[in-house]
Amino acid sequence: MTDSTLTSSAPDMRIALIGAGTIGLSLAALHLTHLPDASQLTIMDVRPDLEAYVAAVLPTHLPPGLRKLAAEVKLTSSVAEAVADCTIVQESGPERLDFKTQLWADVERLAPRGALLWTSTSGIPASQQNAAMEDKTRLLVVHPFNPPHILPLLEIVPSPQTSRAVVTKTMDFWRQIGREPVLLSREITGFVAGRLAWALLREAIHLVNEDVVTVEQLDRVMQTSMGPRWAYAGPFKSFQAGGGPGGLRALLGNVGGTVQACWDDGGRVDVGGSWEAKVFAQTDEAYGRPDLEERDEANRMVLRAVREAKSGRPGPASADGHDGT
Amino acid sequence: MTDSTLTSSAPDMRIALIGAGTIGLSLAALHLTHLPDASQLTIMDVRPDLEAYVAAVLPTHLPPGLRKLAAEVKLTSSVAEAVADCTIVQESGPERLDFKTQLWADVERLAPRGALLWTSTSGIPASQQNAAMEDKTRLLVVHPFNPPHILPLLEIVPSPQTSRAVVTKTMDFWRQIGREPVLLSREITGFVAGRLAWALLREAIHLVNEDVVTVEQLDRVMQTSMGPRWAYAGPFKSFQAGGGPGGLRALLGNVGGTVQACWDDGGRVDVGGSWEAKVFAQTDEAYGRPDLEERDEANRMVLRAVREAKSGRPGPASADGHDGT
Repeated sequence: MTDSTLTSSAPDMRIALIGAGTIGLSLAALHLTHLPDASQLTIMDVRPDLEAYVAAVLPTHLPPGLRKLAAEVKLTSSVAEAVADCTIVQESGPERLDFKTQLWADVERLAPRGALLWTSTSGIPASQQNAAMEDKTRLLVVHPFNPPHILPLLEIVPSPQTSRAVVTKTMDFWRQIGREPVLLSREITGFVAGRLAWALLREAIHLVNEDVVTVEQLDRVMQTSMGPRWAYAGPFKSFQAGGGPGGLRALLGNVGGTVQACWDDGGRVDVGGSWEAKVFAQTDEAYGRPDLEERDEANRMVLRAVREAKSGRPGPASADGHDGT
Repeated sequence: MTDSTLTSSAPDMRIALIGAGTIGLSLAALHLTHLPDASQLTIMDVRPDLEAYVAAVLPTHLPPGLRKLAAEVKLTSSVAEAVADCTIVQESGPERLDFKTQLWADVERLAPRGALLWTSTSGIPASQQNAAMEDKTRLLVVHPFNPPHILPLLEIVPSPQTSRAVVTKTMDFWRQIGREPVLLSREITGFVAGRLAWALLREAIHLVNEDVVTVEQLDRVMQTSMGPRWAYAGPFKSFQAGGGPGGLRALLGNVGGTVQACWDDGGRVDVGGSWEAKVFAQTDEAYGRPDLEERDEANRMVLRAVREAKSGRPGPASADGHDGT
């Protein structure tokens, strides 16, 4: 197992997933779509019903033609067995620093020297998780956006000790299987996707708490305005287009006063504040338990629509050339 | 012309659009898709090349089968002529209070008493625009999201003086033509869509200004994570799903510490700050002038994908049942 096998030779790839939760099994489904053989994937978890659980859940994440592969994945309750012969270790275990610190010290001892070590954490930076490791150059954050077998984003967040070679191999891996790795220049709380989402949520909570709109109305605003737009282009490209020939600069030249006024009296709610009873109750009443299958299918179809629009190849669903309104 | 004709009888509907800018012509295209006859629509603007301009731009907003209608719309440079016989006046003129105040005083005098009076303003509330009107119950904000012939949102924002009957008729109109009117309980700077967008943009600017990611990377994060999600479901429904059985409440119970930490050290940039040179330059370099046709086609296709997913009717483009990753 040389370093080069990690990025160039899928037949030699062996991936160990630590943790069979929501993220772990979604990652398993994703890896099964690119690995030549399902036996190249091992799932490690200490839950006693691991086999039955994987058999029940993993096929639901797979396209019909690949569902039988779920039974061919290796399962184990032993970290040592999972990582002994692997080229990649991807951890999606409990969000506890003590668990992760111990895990990586163990993995460093048990896995081949060239294996890439990835943590799916959404909150504990690699620079903390690597505390008990001898070689801190190997570990970095690979933060997926749930569920990763559908949504393409991976936030790649090295610690200050992570080697450049490990970062490069990690980026190459995700690009080669057609996903969207985005390399952050440094560790930051919440990473980028989380910070953007929470910033918007704070204003959303503020507007509901002030009774300007309800939870359901606010969601409808998003779905019928920025949502479709941001599925195609992020905020900078969207506002650049919105500003006409002068772009974002011209836009803020025109409406900067309103923007600043919104910022100055924007939502200043805090976690645990008195808004929670109202907002949680409205959300429960509006949605109960949302339909995840419909969500996942919608997300797949939206991603496909954007791909088709960008490729200039009108898909069958756009044959009428207009949205019919 | 009785009130009932406004919402129930399209043959008697006559719409006067004041202002033939980007929003005005997009609204014209939208109205042409539901009016029985193009002559029921009048566009008023004082630009000397109005006829040539409308002939060049309006057809590009219409599906091929309707493009010939652009030549049948009535054009005028006179407010009096535009509104004399109309049931709806929709204003998308300059964002200047003096212009709008005078316009509504004139329109009130010149239009039929039952006509609905709508302003597309993104920033000047109806309670200011109605200053010179005798009957302030008739005017309200109907704020479209650009371009309204594609994106379905209309933010309906009455002033404290707007009558309930006018609000009801306005909501009914937009619902009947298949758009998404959302009624705000009161006037608020930036309305809802704008406030949400600006809140997210502020954090986005902060992250680029701090060199965590580039403009292009940040946009890629959005397009591959929250964008597709929010095209299907707004932030509350999305986070309700993300929290599992416990919903949004459970989610914030788990990650509330990280959320609060993000809020506490989030972007505090201001309009006109030193970040502008860097962010504007990166945006210009990344995108120049974005392709609006591709954007509009992508937005149409995304909206169609969401409709198909929600109707449970898999469109032709989803025939392979998986996104191929």
